[in-house]
Amino acid sequence: MDRDDWDLTPDSVQLALEHLVPASAGKVVREAFYGTRRFDDFVRRTGLTAPVLSARLRDLEASGVIEKRPYREPGQRTRHEYRLTQQGQDLGTAVVALLEWADRWLPTPDGPTVVLEHRECGASVHVAMGCSVGHGVDITDVVALPGPGARRVGTS
Amino acid sequence: MDRDDWDLTPDSVQLALEHLVPASAGKVVREAFYGTRRFDDFVRRTGLTAPVLSARLRDLEASGVIEKRPYREPGQRTRHEYRLTQQGQDLGTAVVALLEWADRWLPTPDGPTVVLEHRECGASVHVAMGCSVGHGVDITDVVALPGPGARRVGTS
Repeated sequence: MDRDDWDLTPDSVQLALEHLVPASAGKVVREAFYGTRRFDDFVRRTGLTAPVLSARLRDLEASGVIEKRPYREPGQRTRHEYRLTQQGQDLGTAVVALLEWADRWLPTPDGPTVVLEHRECGASVHVAMGCSVGHGVDITDVVALPGPGARRVGTS
Repeated sequence: MDRDDWDLTPDSVQLALEHLVPASAGKVVREAFYGTRRFDDFVRRTGLTAPVLSARLRDLEASGVIEKRPYREPGQRTRHEYRLTQQGQDLGTAVVALLEWADRWLPTPDGPTVVLEHRECGASVHVAMGCSVGHGVDITDVVALPGPGARRVGTS
């Protein structure tokens, strides 16, 4: 395609990245994937202050990534926990892809701090690209084309 | 694992997200994946100002995602173009995963502005999670465990 012929905004990659920033939101999403649900646990595990964490949880709730649910333990008052919604869970493939990338290109001295296993069989988990016919696909073999939502530049 | 027993910082997901923010860096990375190489094209296609673009290109060059290469057309002075490095190309799986997620959860009214095809066969490109044994894996079946780089809380 001649890239200049097409107005691709808002495109999905940009939307996704804007959805994930600021970095403090990334920390909250990460901990949610690691199973954290309670406010105090988020504070301790993210290192964010309570006011910053509250703001990020509100943002992520508003954007549909996290939901707030009441829970109550016997003899205690009602509290709230924060869980990934279906939309949030669905970010998992991208989060695992980012983790694999960082393991490779931003390695920590003693190796990864987190490894991922398939619950059923214990084997390591990876993300891969493929096409709908079933071929494995390298990024250099991916062609980006204007989709149905693309507008020609200069049209409304 | 008992999440509180382990200090998982710096973890790969956090590193990856911090590497990608600010959002203006996301726009540059996106255009680089769509094949943009020249400064003036980046300005026009990202909507960033020249000074902001310069700063982002310098950041991405410093972090190893993009490299600056000289090129020269006949009768013209030497100019520079900006290409994804191997490290940058390797972000492709995560970028495609983010694109698929946003196509699903942040849809634009007329459909995706960009679609991805496998160059060899024309079929659509997707990202999927699997384990090293060959099972397809859902995010709810992924277990995060402390890796070799994890430190017990309270140790150095």
